[in-house]
Amino acid sequence: MSERICGVDLGGTKIEVVIVNGDRKVRGQCRAATPTENGPESVVGAIIAAVAGACTDAGCSPKDLKGIGIGAPGAVNAARGILLHAPNLAGFEEAYPLAERVGAACGAKVRLGNDVGVAVLGELELGAGRKLDSFVGIWWGTGVGSGIVLNRRLWRGRGAAGELGHTVIQRGGLAEPSGLVGTMEAYAGRRNMETRARAAAAAGRSTVLFDLMREAGKERLSSRVWQKALEAGDDLAVELIGEAVDAIAAAAANVVNILDVDAIILGGGLGTRFGQPMADRIGAAMAPYLFQPAKAPPVTTAALGDLGGAIGATLLVGARR
Amino acid sequence: MSERICGVDLGGTKIEVVIVNGDRKVRGQCRAATPTENGPESVVGAIIAAVAGACTDAGCSPKDLKGIGIGAPGAVNAARGILLHAPNLAGFEEAYPLAERVGAACGAKVRLGNDVGVAVLGELELGAGRKLDSFVGIWWGTGVGSGIVLNRRLWRGRGAAGELGHTVIQRGGLAEPSGLVGTMEAYAGRRNMETRARAAAAAGRSTVLFDLMREAGKERLSSRVWQKALEAGDDLAVELIGEAVDAIAAAAANVVNILDVDAIILGGGLGTRFGQPMADRIGAAMAPYLFQPAKAPPVTTAALGDLGGAIGATLLVGARR
Repeated sequence: MSERICGVDLGGTKIEVVIVNGDRKVRGQCRAATPTENGPESVVGAIIAAVAGACTDAGCSPKDLKGIGIGAPGAVNAARGILLHAPNLAGFEEAYPLAERVGAACGAKVRLGNDVGVAVLGELELGAGRKLDSFVGIWWGTGVGSGIVLNRRLWRGRGAAGELGHTVIQRGGLAEPSGLVGTMEAYAGRRNMETRARAAAAAGRSTVLFDLMREAGKERLSSRVWQKALEAGDDLAVELIGEAVDAIAAAAANVVNILDVDAIILGGGLGTRFGQPMADRIGAAMAPYLFQPAKAPPVTTAALGDLGGAIGATLLVGARR
Repeated sequence: MSERICGVDLGGTKIEVVIVNGDRKVRGQCRAATPTENGPESVVGAIIAAVAGACTDAGCSPKDLKGIGIGAPGAVNAARGILLHAPNLAGFEEAYPLAERVGAACGAKVRLGNDVGVAVLGELELGAGRKLDSFVGIWWGTGVGSGIVLNRRLWRGRGAAGELGHTVIQRGGLAEPSGLVGTMEAYAGRRNMETRARAAAAAGRSTVLFDLMREAGKERLSSRVWQKALEAGDDLAVELIGEAVDAIAAAAANVVNILDVDAIILGGGLGTRFGQPMADRIGAAMAPYLFQPAKAPPVTTAALGDLGGAIGATLLVGARR
């Protein structure tokens, strides 16, 4: 059997696992809910079970794996395999040796990266960025992460580059829970949009958002719920998504004015859900913020879709970078 | 005699010329006013005369020069030596073959670059950036230019990178003459600050700014006039500089959140005039906009001072980059 590599996209609500071959073709996959109680050990247990499930789907065993790459939603020490801080994962408020724990249980070598970083790496090597020298990946989901690719390398700066969601576009504007004020994510992050929607509904504003949420059996406004509300012409959803689009466009235009990259690639839960029409809409909304609107770069959607994070994580395995 | 290289900093109000040796030590210099009438030919004439003056000061002749580098305030085609568009230079609204014209008259090879780009290059090779892998140079003057240095190279993107002054920090805020709204330069550019000061004075607001201007024999609010007004505690100057500082800090913090660079280097007419106390003030004002304020990079002033643009322009000569 040819080479088998495992990629894990560890999210706040689900764990997505793929098994790929050396050409990064998906040979098996498994999805599991992310445990939100009983701390890191239960999350490790869920990862191990999902890896085993994906291996079964691919007809291999975890010990056959060349390695496992994990993309995690937070700050990581990649060299030591430590998840430093992951506010969206219950029980990961403190540094945790995730790579070591998963590796010991699976009998495989584990490499750890940031979730948006590995998804952007996936687009760079295998997706919409394959032919680009430079691009900015904007991952629109619970928060809004980003990855800056320059000269076909992910730019990390001193380790914390890519926080486009936390750049200010509106001094004195809306606050994030972090305390930062007027940032793009304050307007565009799905969590912050939900907070605003709940406040509006509590204040008596009419909306179908929470009916759609309950119909879907969810406790949160998922990307699919937002999409359905938009399709239904829900006034509140239209307004909040409109504000999010303008905020993303302003921040994206800022990064274009600063770096003059070849393209913007839109991914993440909401970005992938809304697809190219939304990428086009964001591109149009960038124009008034661009110093050279005639040279606006294209805005395209991530090509790897829902599995992009897990596929990108497989690139952590081996010496490709 | 050892190698002699000429550098020209072509500004909207003055032309600064230096002659350096191979180690970039200044051996001669000359300053002239930039002609504002009679079009490009008169500017070329003034450059040629200033180059000759600097050569005399250095005890050499223009034909002994290894080459001439020119930093010009606008968009350039460096490969062809064409100044494409320089709104701050009278008569340069259209593309003009500046390198060829100066070269033919001086009998020397001429290389052309953007003024802020060459000043940042000077800091990178010879100044405050000598030991840095990455930094952002913010040149605070008539406008606010910037240069992004990554892996010790000036990042140009598709040719137009570095427009930090034109990034938005305040949607719906002050407009620039270009029509862009809420940009850092709308608040911090010296030209835009002067427009606001004139409007406030015309509306009856008390200020010493224009008295100081007339005492200095100027028609514009120079960096020195702003400094003197600040020192005098002029209420309007304090207010407008305060707004400029916050705007620069917000944009600088944005670029740190995006690129996590090693440092910010502050230059330009106002930046050089105000010096390190102002760099410190901008550094402090960045804190509320930083995602990781504990990891704020240092903010330092350009080390090459007033001659930095001309010295940086000498780096265009030769194959150093």
